[in-house]
Amino acid sequence: MSDLIRKSVQAMQGYVPGEQPKEADIVKLNTNENPYLPSPDVQDILSMVDISVLSRYPDPVCMELRKAIAGLHGCDVENVFVGNGSDEVLALCIRAFVERDGSVGFFDPSYSLYPILADIEDVEKKPVSLDAGYGWQMPADYAASLFFLTHPNAPTSFVYDKNSIESFVKNFGGVVLIDEAYADFAEDNCMDLALQHENVIVARTLSKSYSLAGIRLGYCVGNEALIGAMYKIKDSYNVNYLTQEIARVAILDQDTMKANVSAIVETRKMVAEKLEEFGFEVGKSKTNFLWVKPLGIGAKTLFEALRKKNIIVRYFGNDERTRDYLRVTVGTAPEMLKFLDATEAILNGGE
Amino acid sequence: MSDLIRKSVQAMQGYVPGEQPKEADIVKLNTNENPYLPSPDVQDILSMVDISVLSRYPDPVCMELRKAIAGLHGCDVENVFVGNGSDEVLALCIRAFVERDGSVGFFDPSYSLYPILADIEDVEKKPVSLDAGYGWQMPADYAASLFFLTHPNAPTSFVYDKNSIESFVKNFGGVVLIDEAYADFAEDNCMDLALQHENVIVARTLSKSYSLAGIRLGYCVGNEALIGAMYKIKDSYNVNYLTQEIARVAILDQDTMKANVSAIVETRKMVAEKLEEFGFEVGKSKTNFLWVKPLGIGAKTLFEALRKKNIIVRYFGNDERTRDYLRVTVGTAPEMLKFLDATEAILNGGE
Repeated sequence: MSDLIRKSVQAMQGYVPGEQPKEADIVKLNTNENPYLPSPDVQDILSMVDISVLSRYPDPVCMELRKAIAGLHGCDVENVFVGNGSDEVLALCIRAFVERDGSVGFFDPSYSLYPILADIEDVEKKPVSLDAGYGWQMPADYAASLFFLTHPNAPTSFVYDKNSIESFVKNFGGVVLIDEAYADFAEDNCMDLALQHENVIVARTLSKSYSLAGIRLGYCVGNEALIGAMYKIKDSYNVNYLTQEIARVAILDQDTMKANVSAIVETRKMVAEKLEEFGFEVGKSKTNFLWVKPLGIGAKTLFEALRKKNIIVRYFGNDERTRDYLRVTVGTAPEMLKFLDATEAILNGGE
Repeated sequence: MSDLIRKSVQAMQGYVPGEQPKEADIVKLNTNENPYLPSPDVQDILSMVDISVLSRYPDPVCMELRKAIAGLHGCDVENVFVGNGSDEVLALCIRAFVERDGSVGFFDPSYSLYPILADIEDVEKKPVSLDAGYGWQMPADYAASLFFLTHPNAPTSFVYDKNSIESFVKNFGGVVLIDEAYADFAEDNCMDLALQHENVIVARTLSKSYSLAGIRLGYCVGNEALIGAMYKIKDSYNVNYLTQEIARVAILDQDTMKANVSAIVETRKMVAEKLEEFGFEVGKSKTNFLWVKPLGIGAKTLFEALRKKNIIVRYFGNDERTRDYLRVTVGTAPEMLKFLDATEAILNGGE
């Protein structure tokens, strides 16, 4: 049997998504989902669907959706690739831009999917360790075919200095994919770099700020030649009809997205202040989650005690860079008060 | 710029899907879509969706849908992989089962996507030419890491002798993916081979018999080890929430699917008989399309004349094995009468 399966696939570990519990009454703060409703136009789209349209293949190149995205970012549709979640966008970048003897770079720690994507494609990984303060400095003579730069970074929630990013991409010989999954929660972003530099692609997702993780829609913006290469090798009809329509109306309704983001940013501030009152170290988050180092209790102990109280946060225990921290998604204010109350009770020895 | 893009990607041609015209009043018989409505339960699902669920990630392993599929085929959920259309299933098979120095086999002619998938993964192609009657005989000492066997075949619409298929898979050293996109339109299928032979996977789609090309759902059934390898390397959340739910209720409603298939099979018979009256050569179709060699007019001429009358069929002109034929999807009876009337008028010199 084993000789039927590719050796690199046998050897690798698959990605393990955050737990999706089935119980009711769970406060779910572990996968950076948005606690608010997507655009009301989404409900309208769903209630108006004529199901006869589902018997036809969807637009293979998502033209109407790409027009909406191009309008949002002030670029041409030829600069926009639309994928079945950012997952597909990231995987296609490796397949399009990394030769078999090429390599994929990324910061360590950052999004834990990157090394797995490199393993899937069986190409070399060239991680760059962040320093003690989670800042970065590229090693001398560093080179890679493709570099995944998460900005703001996950799981640390910080932004980097934009001038440093621009100077890096200018001097880098490969493609730089700036993964801006959380950019709508920050004041600034790098979209302009994708339109100015021929080796830069900026990826976005509707899973976070648009409250649409369930529809699977990610996109990226970049030079027409890079985008064209991705279109050549994608699955023929990679984005289904309903996702194309839902994403289109959600993107056209910027007001709902921005109102949800504002609410989350406000709650983020409240939670960070309260955790700092506990003496916890809280990263300067520009995302919809907090990167938290507890005081007076181990991260793992707090994680497990919260889980018992039906509050799920994310703990990355198998890396010494992350094992003293918890990643806490910013939910609604009532959810976060439950989280804070539970944390306080645990700190006070009340289980 | 070009040094940023992988050489094999620069060299290859992308897949060109059949035309999806925007005009109204088109009789669209070119992409083997189903002209009937999907299960009415699909409409119920869409009208009952609480959009708050869309803000959460979908089940990454599609458990409820796989239970429905396992129930249909009498196997375990571990035997079932669910993908973002059969496209994803086929592409993942290459990534999971074909080493970089391995090879992909398929019949010629068959589904034109296979060689493109091999090009995308940059592995060797080992096509096996069908004989003049579109039958097959494997060359002596033929070997490949993976063989795509389309059954019933496309674009020819025929089934092969099942004993021959079984004897082939027993002696073949690689994985055999039997692509049964059209199996619901035939009397027999090879699903039992997937459950009896450890190197056989049978792929199905909801795009044809279930009238759901728009949702992108394909699945495959096979040995747990092969299915497990595919799960390791798929995108993290490859099938969106709505597609999972729609597919589940559609599969549970076998009656609607079977009624639609019966109507198409009946219309297929009527159209085949009428085309034979014109003197056309019509393949013994076990699919939702007909493979037709016109008499008294070239295939390309007839294709173009029909297009002018807003009737679109499929013409594969760049292969001498297929250029004398048209592939005609079986639509509704009224659509097919329009097609037959138009064809008759063209034959009689009336444009």
